[in-house]
Amino acid sequence: MSAASVRPADLITLTTDFGAESPYVAAMKGVILSHNRWARIVDLSHGIPPQDILAGALALDQASRWFPPGTIHVAVVDPGVGTARRIVCAEIAGQWYVGPDNGLFSCLAQRTRPTTIVAVEDRQFWLPQVSHTFHGRDIMAPVVARLSLGLDPLALGPRLESLVMLNRREVVVVPGKIVGAVAAIDSFGNLITDIAGEALKDAPTDERLQVECDEHQTTGLYQTYGDQPAMTLMALIGSSGFLELAIVEDSAAIMLGVKRGSKVTVTW
Amino acid sequence: MSAASVRPADLITLTTDFGAESPYVAAMKGVILSHNRWARIVDLSHGIPPQDILAGALALDQASRWFPPGTIHVAVVDPGVGTARRIVCAEIAGQWYVGPDNGLFSCLAQRTRPTTIVAVEDRQFWLPQVSHTFHGRDIMAPVVARLSLGLDPLALGPRLESLVMLNRREVVVVPGKIVGAVAAIDSFGNLITDIAGEALKDAPTDERLQVECDEHQTTGLYQTYGDQPAMTLMALIGSSGFLELAIVEDSAAIMLGVKRGSKVTVTW
Amino acid sequence: MSAASVRPADLITLTTDFGAESPYVAAMKGVILSHNRWARIVDLSHGIPPQDILAGALALDQASRWFPPGTIHVAVVDPGVGTARRIVCAEIAGQWYVGPDNGLFSCLAQRTRPTTIVAVEDRQFWLPQVSHTFHGRDIMAPVVARLSLGLDPLALGPRLESLVMLNRREVVVVPGKIVGAVAAIDSFGNLITDIAGEALKDAPTDERLQVECDEHQTTGLYQTYGDQPAMTLMALIGSSGFLELAIVEDSAAIMLGVKRGSKVTVTW
Repeated sequence: MSAASVRPADLITLTTDFGAESPYVAAMKGVILSHNRWARIVDLSHGIPPQDILAGALALDQASRWFPPGTIHVAVVDPGVGTARRIVCAEIAGQWYVGPDNGLFSCLAQRTRPTTIVAVEDRQFWLPQVSHTFHGRDIMAPVVARLSLGLDPLALGPRLESLVMLNRREVVVVPGKIVGAVAAIDSFGNLITDIAGEALKDAPTDERLQVECDEHQTTGLYQTYGDQPAMTLMALIGSSGFLELAIVEDSAAIMLGVKRGSKVTVTW
Repeated sequence: MSAASVRPADLITLTTDFGAESPYVAAMKGVILSHNRWARIVDLSHGIPPQDILAGALALDQASRWFPPGTIHVAVVDPGVGTARRIVCAEIAGQWYVGPDNGLFSCLAQRTRPTTIVAVEDRQFWLPQVSHTFHGRDIMAPVVARLSLGLDPLALGPRLESLVMLNRREVVVVPGKIVGAVAAIDSFGNLITDIAGEALKDAPTDERLQVECDEHQTTGLYQTYGDQPAMTLMALIGSSGFLELAIVEDSAAIMLGVKRGSKVTVTW
Repeated sequence: MSAASVRPADLITLTTDFGAESPYVAAMKGVILSHNRWARIVDLSHGIPPQDILAGALALDQASRWFPPGTIHVAVVDPGVGTARRIVCAEIAGQWYVGPDNGLFSCLAQRTRPTTIVAVEDRQFWLPQVSHTFHGRDIMAPVVARLSLGLDPLALGPRLESLVMLNRREVVVVPGKIVGAVAAIDSFGNLITDIAGEALKDAPTDERLQVECDEHQTTGLYQTYGDQPAMTLMALIGSSGFLELAIVEDSAAIMLGVKRGSKVTVTW
C-alpha cells in the first residue's frame, strides 16, 4: 500500500506514559478536537510506565492491530523530547503511527515492514508555539488531526529509509529447547513471554514439556486458566499468541516475584 | 418489551476487570470499531477487582440504569473463560447485556426480570479465530458490534430460561432492626451497604436510630455529608438509594479498616 | 462575547475527583447521553484528589484552554454537595463551565474575567429526583446536556456578579528574587510551581540563577529534560508556561520528598 492510497480517517488512538488521570492527555485531545472537531479519539493506553519505550512498543504491537485500516495511532513515550531525536510518521500494515523515533514502533516494524516513513519536520502543520517539553501536544496532536482530515503524510517532511529499532535480546530456538524472557506483565499478573506460540507448534503439550522461569517450574501446555485448579502455576498460549505463565485465580507476578526481563526456558 | 422491538443502537458500554490502562480494553474497542465504525463506546468501569464477579454485578446495576433505552452493555469479569460456562445476551429493563453467564448480571436481574435471554452460540458472529483466554475480544466484541448494527439478538443462539444468579446473603428485616452488609466501597472510601433506603422509610432519623458496622457506631440518619462536622462518622441514604456510612471529608474504609462484606446492623 | 452568541456545542468535558474507575463517572455520562444522544464526552481528568478544590482548579486551568470555543466543561469536586453552596454556569474565554461555586473555577477566572455567570437554580432542567449527595449526576449532567442542545445559559437561573475565589498565597516578585510554591506535581514527579515564565524573562539563565525548593538547590534555567544528564535536578519553564523542577529520567517528587505547597525561591 502506498501513501497515495490513504483516505481521510477519523479514528485516532492515543498511547502515552502520562497516566489516564493526567491533564496532559486532555490537552492533547483538546488540540486534536480544535483542529478536527469530528475526530474520534480512543485511548489505547496511558499506563505505559514513565519513559519505558519497550513497554510502549509492546502495547502498541498488541492492541493497535485490532483497529480498522487507516486508523491513526499517536504515541508519546518521549524521554528525549526537545533534543535532536526525530518525530516520525510511519505506515505499517495499513495503519498510521506518529511519535518520537526512539524505538516505540519497533515491535510493530519487526512484524511488518513499514511501507512509508516520513520525518515530521514541516512546522506549518504544528501549533504556532512549540514548547520544549511537550511535543505530543504541540507537534503530534495537530499533525494527527490534520492527517485525519486528509493531509497527505508525505507533506509532513522528507522520507526516511528506516525507523530506530530497540535492541532486544532474541529468543533462542534450538531443537528441544527455547530460551526467551518475560516481555510484559498484564493487569492480572500473568507473565507474557516473547516466545511465540508457533515456535512451540511441534512441542508436546503434556508433562514432557518443561517451562522454567527464574527458579519456578511447571510442566505441560494448557488452553485456558480453568484447565487447572486455583493457585496452580501453569503455561499456556495467551490471547496475543505468546507463551504465558499464569497462576490460576491469582497474580503470578506477585506470587512468584518475577519481573519483566526474567529468563524463560522451555525444554522437551 | 420483546426482542422484536429492538432497534439498532450505537451506544455500547464496557465493564471489565482489566484496568483502564490495559491494552486488552483497547483491543476490544478496536474489534468493535472494526465491525461498526460508528459505534459510540463508553467506559462504564475497568476497575472491577480481578475476577470479582459480585463487584462487577454491583457496578453494572448502579451505573447502567442511567443510560438510554437500547444501550448495549458488554461486561467481562470472566474467571471461567474458555471453560464450559456460557456467554449470554439478556434484555433487562429495555437495555441489552452481553457477558459470561456467571452471575455478573444477577443484581440487575434481581431488580427487573429479564425479558429475553439468549445463549451466544452461533460462531458466524464471532471472530474467525477464537482464543481460549480472551472471549471478550474474540466473541463478545464482534457480537455487540453486530447488535449495534441491528442484528436480532435471537439470531445469536437458543433462548434460555434464566441467568446464573449469585448467592448473596439476604438483608434481614424485622420490626425495629435490619441486618445487612457493606456491599461496595466507593472511591471516597464511603461504605455502601445493601440496605435499601425504602427499608428505612418508617424508621426515625434522629438519635433513636443506631447504626453499627463492625465495632463502630453512629446514630441518626442525615441527608448529606455537609450535615456533620469533618471527621464524623455518619449514616445517610446515598445517591444509589442505599444506606451509606461515611466519614465527613475522609475515607471511612481507611479510617475504620472496614472491608466489603462487613456486617451492618440498624436498630431503632 | 455575550451569552447571546452561544451556539449549540456538542463537546462536553468531565473533571471529577471520583477516580476513572468509578461507576459515578459512568452514571454522569449515562445521564448526559440520555438527554443528548449525540453529545461527545471527553474525560478531562477523574484523578483530582478527593475534595481537593485547588487541584481541580489547576487541572481545569491547564487543560480546558486547549479545547475549541464553545466547549462545555462540567467539574465535580464538591465537598459541600447538598448544603447551601451554589451551582454555577460561567462563560470564561469563550467556553462554558458548570460546577459547584466553591473556587473550582478560580484559576481560570483569575486569568480571564468571566463574561457571564449564572446560578443554576431552575429545577425544570434537572432530573425529576435530586439526591442530596450526587448533584453531578442529578443537576449538572442534565444541565450541561441541555446546554449542548442549545439551551440559553441565562435560562438556568439569575445572573451573578462573581464567582467564589480560592485564597492562594500570591507569588512575591522583587528585583532579583521571586518566592512561590509547588502548585502541582505531574505524573512524572515533576514539580510545577506557580511562578510564571514571564516573571523570569529578565533573569539570567546561566549559573547566576539559583532555584531553591525546601533544602534542595539547582542553578541555571534549561529548555528541556535532555539538556542535563540523568538524575540531575534541573529547572526549566514547563509546557504550561510555569517554572518547573525536574529530576532527569526520575521523579523529583519521590527523590526529594517534596510536596505540593513547598516554598520555591528563585534568586539572581
